[in-house]
Amino acid sequence: MSHTAEIIAVGTELLLGNIANTNAQVLSESLSTLGINVFWHTVVGDNPDRLREALDIARRRADIIITTGGLGPTYDDLTKQTICETFHQKLTLHPDILDDIRTFYESALHVPMPENNTQQAELPEGCTVFDNPVGTAPGCAFECEGVHVLMFPGPPHEMTTMLRRCGEPYLRKLSKEVIVSRDIMTFGMGESSIDELLHEKMAHMTNPTLATYAKPGEVRLRATAKAATEEEAQAMLNPVWDLVCETLGDVVYGVDVSGLAECCHSLLLLKGLTLATAESCTGGLVAERMTAIPGASAVYRGGVVSYWTSVKGAVLGVPQETLDTYGAVSEETARAMAEGVCRITGADIGVSITGVAGPDPDERGVPVGIVYIGLATPEGTFCRKVDFGRRRRDRIQGLAANHAFDVVRRWLTGLPVETV
Amino acid sequence: MSHTAEIIAVGTELLLGNIANTNAQVLSESLSTLGINVFWHTVVGDNPDRLREALDIARRRADIIITTGGLGPTYDDLTKQTICETFHQKLTLHPDILDDIRTFYESALHVPMPENNTQQAELPEGCTVFDNPVGTAPGCAFECEGVHVLMFPGPPHEMTTMLRRCGEPYLRKLSKEVIVSRDIMTFGMGESSIDELLHEKMAHMTNPTLATYAKPGEVRLRATAKAATEEEAQAMLNPVWDLVCETLGDVVYGVDVSGLAECCHSLLLLKGLTLATAESCTGGLVAERMTAIPGASAVYRGGVVSYWTSVKGAVLGVPQETLDTYGAVSEETARAMAEGVCRITGADIGVSITGVAGPDPDERGVPVGIVYIGLATPEGTFCRKVDFGRRRRDRIQGLAANHAFDVVRRWLTGLPVETV
Repeated sequence: MSHTAEIIAVGTELLLGNIANTNAQVLSESLSTLGINVFWHTVVGDNPDRLREALDIARRRADIIITTGGLGPTYDDLTKQTICETFHQKLTLHPDILDDIRTFYESALHVPMPENNTQQAELPEGCTVFDNPVGTAPGCAFECEGVHVLMFPGPPHEMTTMLRRCGEPYLRKLSKEVIVSRDIMTFGMGESSIDELLHEKMAHMTNPTLATYAKPGEVRLRATAKAATEEEAQAMLNPVWDLVCETLGDVVYGVDVSGLAECCHSLLLLKGLTLATAESCTGGLVAERMTAIPGASAVYRGGVVSYWTSVKGAVLGVPQETLDTYGAVSEETARAMAEGVCRITGADIGVSITGVAGPDPDERGVPVGIVYIGLATPEGTFCRKVDFGRRRRDRIQGLAANHAFDVVRRWLTGLPVETV
Repeated sequence: MSHTAEIIAVGTELLLGNIANTNAQVLSESLSTLGINVFWHTVVGDNPDRLREALDIARRRADIIITTGGLGPTYDDLTKQTICETFHQKLTLHPDILDDIRTFYESALHVPMPENNTQQAELPEGCTVFDNPVGTAPGCAFECEGVHVLMFPGPPHEMTTMLRRCGEPYLRKLSKEVIVSRDIMTFGMGESSIDELLHEKMAHMTNPTLATYAKPGEVRLRATAKAATEEEAQAMLNPVWDLVCETLGDVVYGVDVSGLAECCHSLLLLKGLTLATAESCTGGLVAERMTAIPGASAVYRGGVVSYWTSVKGAVLGVPQETLDTYGAVSEETARAMAEGVCRITGADIGVSITGVAGPDPDERGVPVGIVYIGLATPEGTFCRKVDFGRRRRDRIQGLAANHAFDVVRRWLTGLPVETV
């Protein structure tokens, strides 16, 4: 039997628009991977009457209720009390949890525990405790009349940490099956084209399944299999991986990596090569994504943001004649920028981006959306031209950065780089 | 009488955790500014039965229902039909809207309109139409038995555009009062310190009100006034602005600007000065934020990401002796980086960042979280040292970038820059 879940977030800050309900997203993705249907998200404020109403509605239509928020030590944190009233559970003090909270205050925050934190150590009698290693509010789970209730604190990093450590194991036990997922990453083909190519082969499949998640320019395919053992589930995913690679070819760039920057980072490490960047219209975005990766300095030497044409000449050494003859946004300039940044940083390969992000065309009339990606390597210099059309500035910048990484990863894996 | 709203998002992608419900956040912030209480958010999938249930529940507890999503042209876009059934409204074809959609396809997308887009031109009889200038699905609003129903498409930029152009004017008319808000931006003081300083003076106030919204390192104060006319409301906000400035002093950096980068951009424009950046641990983040602003090239010349120490020497001209004696993460290097980037780009002022973002200390043992911000100006070179402690890498990078902009804006407004 498959389970149905409702996620209830408690917090006035969500209703004021102070923050988005990212906890519901993280929980939903996790539940969907575990094979649990999520049919409802609800958000209520720090108000016991409305939370009670939400719980009464939820218990009629779901057999798993997950709440986030309202477990703090202040007077308006009422989730636990309200849930216990609704489900006729008794709150009891857990002395060991109280010790943990006291220790957290004294050793991590170097202050004595305020007395009102004592109520955080009160949990429903007989519940499964979800320890909180990154904060003070523990979570918990219990079953009552066929409904499982799970409570998590509201701060996203606390919720996520506890979900992985305690929530997912608890939920996994509700099912006899083991569920395993792998994220197949692609770049260079739209979601609808991918759907079309895979539809015939995948539409009839119910186990394993393949779902697509699109971000601008990138599509993530999540393959999920259910089986009696982990090995069995893993084995079921291998033909899916083969099928996707066979069908989509070299737009597939990795599995279980976070994105193109991380893929380039790993390939550079593997090959023992270093990278430098020369950016015009992306204004440092490629450098920023590269250096967001811990340990980036092993493969990334640095870069130049040559926003003004004069900087392309003075810092990157693009010849004035090239700039005069072909313009700042041209294949010739892109090539010279990539070669220049290798020269001044000593990197093995250099990637450059010059284009028009808008809102206006450049002074030579090159239209918004035209971008050249240059790549200087020990084997020669390459260039890819892309036309993103009249998109928004931030979209053009983001897509251009993706293409820069794609050019790098294609060269590092021996693929042609001029086109996607 | 104050209104009560419920926001219902329709979309299976939300329940799968594919995206977060950012529309609900944008709507909630807008409604709160308009003085409308939001007590519930609900999310359902593309499922007419569950949407019907959500509408039945919502109409009993709210007098404004706002839906997002499900207005597309495909078979599973059923919001309009389901709402019309629930509220006994008749759908009629609007030929002028059909023309608009056809024109959008032909002139912006250069393809003929698919036939199933015709249903997007069907709207409830007698409704107020919300034009969609950035997509094909129009929205609308109608009143039925004292309940106002507003429908928006799901893509966030379409929803936000239509909310500002059509939704907010519609909602504003529901109230006899005019509501005016101003966002007062601060940097350098925590939310709790700001609350403490302003609490006594603001806690008793109900009109105008002052709410705080915190992001890492920045706090936005939203001042809101209700009155019979816009002039009156504006006038009520002036003393709030004075009070905040008087209480918080120079941590206030602007009003109704998007952030520190935009503030620096405006100040540079005003003074006719140009900026360059030299970044180590922020890896291009300051450059990226600067160039995210349309028209950045008027004031931003470019920069260097000197991630490797050798790049600090070879490209920025930091003397080898400075690097050897004081190390790459030091006040002396920060100063030399800022001066170097001015020299090579010709910019009037240069800002530099060198520090340890982690996860590991630098090779000389400088601990994670130590960051130096250098500023080279025609009046001399300055340096600010900050200790962010053992925070997460991305937090240290983000905070360091904020401090770099703060140093620039403080110098441009004649304030001391060495400390916050």
